[in-house]
Amino acid sequence: MMTDAKIRLYVDHPLAGGQSVPLDADQALYLFSVMRLQRGDAVLLFNGRDGEWRAEVAEATKRRGVLICRSQTRPLSPSPDLWLLFAPVKKAETVFIVEKAVELGVARLCPVQTARTNADRLNRDRMQANAREAAEQCGATVVPEVEDLLPLERRLADWPAERRILWCNEALAGAATVLAGQARGPWAILIGPEGGFSPAEAARLAAMPQVVQASLGPRILRAETAAVAALTLWQSALGDWA
Amino acid sequence: MMTDAKIRLYVDHPLAGGQSVPLDADQALYLFSVMRLQRGDAVLLFNGRDGEWRAEVAEATKRRGVLICRSQTRPLSPSPDLWLLFAPVKKAETVFIVEKAVELGVARLCPVQTARTNADRLNRDRMQANAREAAEQCGATVVPEVEDLLPLERRLADWPAERRILWCNEALAGAATVLAGQARGPWAILIGPEGGFSPAEAARLAAMPQVVQASLGPRILRAETAAVAALTLWQSALGDWA
Repeated sequence: MMTDAKIRLYVDHPLAGGQSVPLDADQALYLFSVMRLQRGDAVLLFNGRDGEWRAEVAEATKRRGVLICRSQTRPLSPSPDLWLLFAPVKKAETVFIVEKAVELGVARLCPVQTARTNADRLNRDRMQANAREAAEQCGATVVPEVEDLLPLERRLADWPAERRILWCNEALAGAATVLAGQARGPWAILIGPEGGFSPAEAARLAAMPQVVQASLGPRILRAETAAVAALTLWQSALGDWA
Repeated sequence: MMTDAKIRLYVDHPLAGGQSVPLDADQALYLFSVMRLQRGDAVLLFNGRDGEWRAEVAEATKRRGVLICRSQTRPLSPSPDLWLLFAPVKKAETVFIVEKAVELGVARLCPVQTARTNADRLNRDRMQANAREAAEQCGATVVPEVEDLLPLERRLADWPAERRILWCNEALAGAATVLAGQARGPWAILIGPEGGFSPAEAARLAAMPQVVQASLGPRILRAETAAVAALTLWQSALGDWA
């Protein structure tokens, strides 16, 4: 009897019936030394383009291995066209925002630097790896792209006319009410830094026709909680949770 | 000029105009040694019953201190009558669930032991302290009560007839849709353990007239993400976020 595939792995390689997929040294180490898989054991693979495939171990050594794709287990299911703009907070909370955004479903993660953001650099590769790991664990068939850290002003400078921005602040109207009246299409969610936006930033945002302001309730939410709450409400109103 | 009150403190003492509030040794240490407050500096106090008060430091030593309430800054604003039932996960995630539940607004936290929950005991006092700290930081005027860890079966045995339970599982209908049709009143949200409920538990839940099943989207959410997402949707549909 074939082992049930419990492990999901992102690979940067085409997937199709009969396709062989070489593993890199880290993946081989993980599958064969850590997880103790053997020849014939099954793994689920996805690459962000070809859906999810059940593959079997064809070759296994400590340092390398080859998997053979057997059958597609899920079609590609892209995330809604939603970007998350957020001011990076402390490291653990930033990892958390990335992980939860992937679980809840976004297309792109855009860290932005604001007047009151402390971070002036960010390890983009590390964040992309966090996103990949979160996708492996939550059953997603795509991995959101992580952008470089950009100043908010530059991020907004050439903002696409058709992409609306849900700006979560202390506006009077609740996000669910605000979103109920909105059309589907390209969106972004903007979560400010813990210290709030500067008056200049707030004025800049309020002047953009794409910006929709909404509140996340009467309590003060931390940045990472606000990110999860806003993504949840957006997914329920305009995304793929309906 | 009076210092702007930046510190919020939960105290177990009546609050009213002119009322003096003695501090315990931990609180005095925090305010005077860590935060370096001095006589005349202001602090915000709440006790879960009398709203939020601006108080001034009247006496300050390393080990003790007295504050005097000057004016009420916010009335008592109770959380909606919502309980969160959850199977404790790893320690950091459990702290996270408690903290986020307080930020998003619940009346009671009920850890439950299920067939596939690993935890067989829980430090209730520690969890209550986490809830208090979260309330101090998020501007809440009440602190949710933390219950002892109880087996799910016992928790459901004398369940109040009028308290509905939102059971977040892989039901077909999305939570926002399901909640849109529901009446306000006493509710509970039930988040299962990472391994899911046992077939016996699932059958028990499905048979209860108070239980309403709903899905949290097509991706697999971790327990702590599911808790935040479910609380957000409930607050938006039936709570105080509208």
